[in-house]
Amino acid sequence: MELLTKKIINDPRSVVDETLEGFLAAHGEHYEKLPDVRGICMKQKKDKTALVIGGGSGHEPMFAFFVGDGLADAAACGNIFASPDPNTILRTAQAVDQGKGVLFVYGNYAGDNLNFDMAAELLESFGVQSKTVRVMDDVASAPKGRITDRRGIAGDFYVIKIAGAATAAGLSLEEAYRVTAKARDNVFSIGIALSGCTLPGEENPIFTLPEDEIEFGMGVHGEPGIKREKLQTADSIVSQLVEKILDESGIQDGDTVCTLVNGLGATSLSELYIINRKLKELLKATGISVYEMEVGSYITSQEMAGASITLFKLDQELKAYYDAPCRCPSYRKEEKK
Amino acid sequence: MELLTKKIINDPRSVVDETLEGFLAAHGEHYEKLPDVRGICMKQKKDKTALVIGGGSGHEPMFAFFVGDGLADAAACGNIFASPDPNTILRTAQAVDQGKGVLFVYGNYAGDNLNFDMAAELLESFGVQSKTVRVMDDVASAPKGRITDRRGIAGDFYVIKIAGAATAAGLSLEEAYRVTAKARDNVFSIGIALSGCTLPGEENPIFTLPEDEIEFGMGVHGEPGIKREKLQTADSIVSQLVEKILDESGIQDGDTVCTLVNGLGATSLSELYIINRKLKELLKATGISVYEMEVGSYITSQEMAGASITLFKLDQELKAYYDAPCRCPSYRKEEKK
Repeated sequence: MELLTKKIINDPRSVVDETLEGFLAAHGEHYEKLPDVRGICMKQKKDKTALVIGGGSGHEPMFAFFVGDGLADAAACGNIFASPDPNTILRTAQAVDQGKGVLFVYGNYAGDNLNFDMAAELLESFGVQSKTVRVMDDVASAPKGRITDRRGIAGDFYVIKIAGAATAAGLSLEEAYRVTAKARDNVFSIGIALSGCTLPGEENPIFTLPEDEIEFGMGVHGEPGIKREKLQTADSIVSQLVEKILDESGIQDGDTVCTLVNGLGATSLSELYIINRKLKELLKATGISVYEMEVGSYITSQEMAGASITLFKLDQELKAYYDAPCRCPSYRKEEKK
Repeated sequence: MELLTKKIINDPRSVVDETLEGFLAAHGEHYEKLPDVRGICMKQKKDKTALVIGGGSGHEPMFAFFVGDGLADAAACGNIFASPDPNTILRTAQAVDQGKGVLFVYGNYAGDNLNFDMAAELLESFGVQSKTVRVMDDVASAPKGRITDRRGIAGDFYVIKIAGAATAAGLSLEEAYRVTAKARDNVFSIGIALSGCTLPGEENPIFTLPEDEIEFGMGVHGEPGIKREKLQTADSIVSQLVEKILDESGIQDGDTVCTLVNGLGATSLSELYIINRKLKELLKATGISVYEMEVGSYITSQEMAGASITLFKLDQELKAYYDAPCRCPSYRKEEKK
């Protein structure tokens, strides 16, 4: 077959399965794939409220590679940029449910909502309780008045981190849901795209940008943003992104936040740190305390060039769960000393 | 000023400094930059043989972000794709020398060799002993008969890991040098490029490849490889890379290796795992034992699309140092349980 896209793959139809196989080749000591569906879970099951995450593939390391100690118990993986089907979600949840119920965390997209809801209903018919937290952190994707129309982007990371810590701490489904929903309500992101990306097997990118233009607020699947502007300095970009987040979130002088500068694919770590530099400066100038800063590519869009900034507002309860140790091949947090 | 390159930067001339500032904004609790030169070191100095690494910037996280516990004590950073000057190297080494001497580890490039050698001489004039290990793992860059002409690429990672563990274990300069040189002699890599990359401030990429061609053996600064071929499947690429490494290294049935699939920039984690899948299969078929597999972007070339495979042949001594815990923002290894 012809490989239309210039990527290191074998067959566009086998990208997701072969990615998971390659992951297990490296980490098969601790992880396993369910026999018939694209569900990844830890081999060692834990007696706790189960945390199941998921969504479309193609955003690696999100979602599959955020399964781990103190993080998700399992991930249900769809095809590239497509929701997992209800059966995959159901089977993945059943594989890790220990009779204490299942907490679902995923990004707020129509396809995911439909399929996860269907899986939750099926799960209930088997007598398993579940609760759902949809991440909707992208402040560019809908105005304040329609928060539930917002998409989930890099904020997934914080909501999963908190949900993982809350369930690992032994919280009931109800309590873990309460804490995770609070995390969701305190996470705000916005992205910037410099170039499009091409899906494996496709000849053309899913969108293009003129050589000298960038787009603010673009989604992680190439969803349209809020404005296109001429290429400008990192500091100018970061100032605009931070202003929008502060305006939409109400985060202000005296608040404490964690921050994530997330790379979308082709943007170098160097550029992400240049963004981080200005972010720190702006937050300091605004009187916002920065608890910890994450910089890296946690949720990507194939080889898209661009980045996003996420602010996660902490209170004492969220801070304690944020501090809890966790471990997966993509991310680690050690016990505080 | 005009930003010719579509990257998130402020000024091409300030990319390195602002990257380091952004790093310190995130990790300033543990790291510091020397006042007048581009040297990054840990705040807490350790009473041990000092390990100083370095080289051109633009390959992040290598080199600056591999400073950490059980890794390098300091990194001397050059401009993008250019060696640090002798004064930067000297001052960086002096900042972490504890009277037990300095072990230098860096990639084998003419500019680096010249400048690090000059720094070593200056260091000696101040009464500080040093030893040098140049990484020369790229089997495509020169034939077996001229191993010392080979370039250092992703194999840097393993040599630094071992040197960091050896110096952290309290080995003398002489002994740490011996172990690190053994690591260098057992690390073999080869890369594949799918696209070029553009230096900040430049209008055109440093090289281009036709839409349907890939280049085997290309260096991390766009140095010419050994052959261009038509785009082909991941499995076909990996088979050719592994065959070349096994041929050049003599690694064979019965040996034990660690492996690194390294992304060069724009290549997704998904593609890297697809490479890893075939790598595991081929090594298994050859009777080579795989101890651990690393998959990620450890040494990059801006937004170049491509990847490299590294094999690191272990003996009992190297395995013990490989297993030692270490920690930096880009990489962690926990105590074996």
